[in-house]
Amino acid sequence: MNPIAAPLSSADTALPAHPTAAWQVTASQPVQFSVRIAHGLLELENPLLAQQCGCTRHTPQRRLVVVDRNVDTLYGEALRRYFDHWRIQATWQVLEIDESHKNLEQALLIVHAMDRLGLLRRHEMVVAIGGGVLTDLVGFACSLYRRGVPYLRVPTTLMGQIDAGIGIKTGVNQGGHKNRLGSYFAPAGVLIDPGFLASLSQRHINNGLAEIIKMALIDDAGLFHALESAVGHLPPRAWATPGGPLAQIMERAISGMLAQLTPNLWEQELARSVDFGHTFSPALELHAKPMLLHGEAVAVDMALSLGLATRRGYLSQAEGARALQLIERCGLPTQNPVFNATLLQRALAQAVQHRDGQQRVPLPGPLGHCVFVNDLRPQELTGALDWVALQRSSNERQRA
Amino acid sequence: MNPIAAPLSSADTALPAHPTAAWQVTASQPVQFSVRIAHGLLELENPLLAQQCGCTRHTPQRRLVVVDRNVDTLYGEALRRYFDHWRIQATWQVLEIDESHKNLEQALLIVHAMDRLGLLRRHEMVVAIGGGVLTDLVGFACSLYRRGVPYLRVPTTLMGQIDAGIGIKTGVNQGGHKNRLGSYFAPAGVLIDPGFLASLSQRHINNGLAEIIKMALIDDAGLFHALESAVGHLPPRAWATPGGPLAQIMERAISGMLAQLTPNLWEQELARSVDFGHTFSPALELHAKPMLLHGEAVAVDMALSLGLATRRGYLSQAEGARALQLIERCGLPTQNPVFNATLLQRALAQAVQHRDGQQRVPLPGPLGHCVFVNDLRPQELTGALDWVALQRSSNERQRA
Repeated sequence: MNPIAAPLSSADTALPAHPTAAWQVTASQPVQFSVRIAHGLLELENPLLAQQCGCTRHTPQRRLVVVDRNVDTLYGEALRRYFDHWRIQATWQVLEIDESHKNLEQALLIVHAMDRLGLLRRHEMVVAIGGGVLTDLVGFACSLYRRGVPYLRVPTTLMGQIDAGIGIKTGVNQGGHKNRLGSYFAPAGVLIDPGFLASLSQRHINNGLAEIIKMALIDDAGLFHALESAVGHLPPRAWATPGGPLAQIMERAISGMLAQLTPNLWEQELARSVDFGHTFSPALELHAKPMLLHGEAVAVDMALSLGLATRRGYLSQAEGARALQLIERCGLPTQNPVFNATLLQRALAQAVQHRDGQQRVPLPGPLGHCVFVNDLRPQELTGALDWVALQRSSNERQRA
Repeated sequence: MNPIAAPLSSADTALPAHPTAAWQVTASQPVQFSVRIAHGLLELENPLLAQQCGCTRHTPQRRLVVVDRNVDTLYGEALRRYFDHWRIQATWQVLEIDESHKNLEQALLIVHAMDRLGLLRRHEMVVAIGGGVLTDLVGFACSLYRRGVPYLRVPTTLMGQIDAGIGIKTGVNQGGHKNRLGSYFAPAGVLIDPGFLASLSQRHINNGLAEIIKMALIDDAGLFHALESAVGHLPPRAWATPGGPLAQIMERAISGMLAQLTPNLWEQELARSVDFGHTFSPALELHAKPMLLHGEAVAVDMALSLGLATRRGYLSQAEGARALQLIERCGLPTQNPVFNATLLQRALAQAVQHRDGQQRVPLPGPLGHCVFVNDLRPQELTGALDWVALQRSSNERQRA
C-alpha cells in the first residue's frame, strides 16, 4: 500500500494534481476598537481607564505604563494614585522624547521593559499615555513584540487626541525620514480626556489646530466656519472644558478623521484626503531651523496648497484668502525660509515614491471638499509660493 | 447661525449625543497569496519568477533582490542571467547570515538598500531568495518599511520550503530570545523550486525533515507512514527530482501546514498544533553547544513530547517507540546535554508567557492527531527525559 494514496483528509482536498502544486491562502484580519472622549479619566472613582486596561479592583493586575517626561511631571502623581486605587501594579517607563528621539533606540527601551516584566502575551496590555510621538513609539514597539501585544492609547495633546492617537498607524523615524519604519497596528482602545489639554502651551494647542484646519478644508465646511467663529478664543483651558464650543469642534474633527480613516485603515488607496498638508511638510519638518512642530510644518504646506488650489480655480480667491487668514489667526506659520523651490521639488519626488509613482496631491476645492492632482510642475509650485507671499502682505496691509 | 448645528454630513452620523462621544472603528484586512511548487524556476524560458515579480520583457523594471551568501555562491550566476533575460534591473543585496545573525542590524541593512534604491511603495517589490533566516529577515524589513512594501518569497532550503517560508510570520531574534520581534506580513507570493534542495547538505535536509515529522505526528498519519517507507532514501538529489515519492511527501507536508496556518494566520488561537516540538526547543536552540539547527532542536523537543504523550497513554508504547525511531533514523538528535530538568522548566515558563498564561503544550495522540495539555509538572518532564533515554538504549540494543 502506498500510504500517500490513503483517503485524503479534509486538509488535503486543496491539493491539486501533481506535478505543479499550488495553494491559495485567503484570510481576513478583523480589527475593532473604540475611541472615546471621557472627561475626568484620572478621578479615582472613574472606572473607565481601569476597565479599558482590563482591570477590576477584585484582582491585582500588572501593567506596563509608558509615559513621556511631560506627562510624568504633570500627571505622574495623579496617575499613580489612580492605578494604586484600582490595584494595578504599574511598572513605569518614562521616556525622554520629542520628534528628534522618535527612533528605533527608544522603541527598544520599551521592548526591554516588556522583556524585564515578562508580560503575558494577550492579557497584560501596555498603557501608553502621552503625545503623538509617545503613542506612535509605544504602538510600534507593541506591534513588534511577540508579533503584537495589546496596548491602550491615552493621547494627552490636541495633536494626539484628534489625529496621531486615534488611527492604527505607528512609526519611528529612520535614516532622516519621518516614520520610515512603522506598522498598522490597532490599539485595544483610545481614551481621550480633553482635561489633559489644560496644561498644554498655546503653541502645542495651535499645533493640533493645524490638523483640525486640515479636516475643515478638505472635508467639512461647517467645521471651517466653526473655527472662524472660535478663532481668538482658543486657549488651552477652553479646550479642556466639557460641553463648550471647542468640545464640539473636537468631536467634529475626530468624527471626520475617523470617517476618512476607517474605510482605508491599511492605506490600500494612496490618494488620501487626510494627506492634505502632508506632501511637502515632511521635508520641511526635517530641515527647518529652528525646529517646527509637526502641525506647524503642515500649516506651511497647507498655505502653499491653498495657493495651488486657488491658482487653479479649485477655490475662489476669496475662499483661498479666508483659509490662509484662518491659518495665520490660529498662530500658525505659512512660510519658512527653507521652504523654497528646491525643497518643494525634492519633497514632491519623495511623495511620489511614497505614493507609488504618482503625485496624488490632495487639494481643497471647493471649501470642505478634496481633489487630487498628478500634474504639478515646478513653475506652479513657485507660483503658489508667490501667492502665499502676496496674500500675506495684503493681509498685513489690511491689518495696518 | 451656529455652524456646528448645520445638517450633518454622512461622516457625522456616527456622532452620539454630547458630552460622552464614542466611536467604534471596525474594519477587516484581506490577505491573499499563492504558494506554488515550480521546478526549473531559473530556466531562462520559464516566465514564472519574472511574472511573480510583476515583470514582463516589454518594460525594464527595477527590483531589489536579497539573497544569502550560499545562494549567491551557488545560484548567483544563474539568477543574474535570468534577471538579465527578463530585463529586470536587479540590485543585489547579499547577506552574510545564519541564525546568530538574525537580528535588527541585518534587517536595517535591507532597509538601507531600499532607501538607496528609492523603491516605489507598491509596484517595485522586493525579492527574497534563501533559507528561512533570510526570508524571515526580508519579510520583517519589508513589513516595516513605509509600514509595508510587497515582497516575494523564494525559499531555497527544505526548512524554508515546507515551514518557515510559506506562512506570514516574519521576525528577528532580540535580547537572547528567538523571534522576539516580528510581524505578521503576508508575502505577495511564494515560489518553491525543489531543485534548490539538490545543493543542500544532508544535515540541512534532515533539519527540514524535522518539521515534516512534526506535521506527520500531530496531523497526518499517512505522512508518517510515507516517511517510514522513505527513510534511508532521503538524499538531497532525491528531493530535487520532480514527481518522485519525496515530491509527494513535500506536497503533503505543505498542504497540511497551510491547512493548519490559514484559519489562524494571526494566531488568535494560541493552542496551535504546529507548535508541537516548539515548546522546549527555543531555550535549547539558544543554549546548545555546539549550535543546533532549528529542526534539530525541534527534534529533541519532539522526542521529549513523545515521552510525555506515551507516558500519559495518548500514544501507545509501540507508537511512541516507532515515532522516536523515525526521528533517529532521519539523522536527527533526540537528546542534548543541556536539555535537562532546569532548562525544561525555564522553557515551559517562557512558553506560558508566550501563550498568555497557559501551557497549551501540543502533544500527539493518537498518531496523526493533536491534544493540548495545561497541567505538565516538573516530575513529568523528568519522567519523559527518562523515557527517551530508555527508548534509546533499547533501540541501541536492538541494533546491536
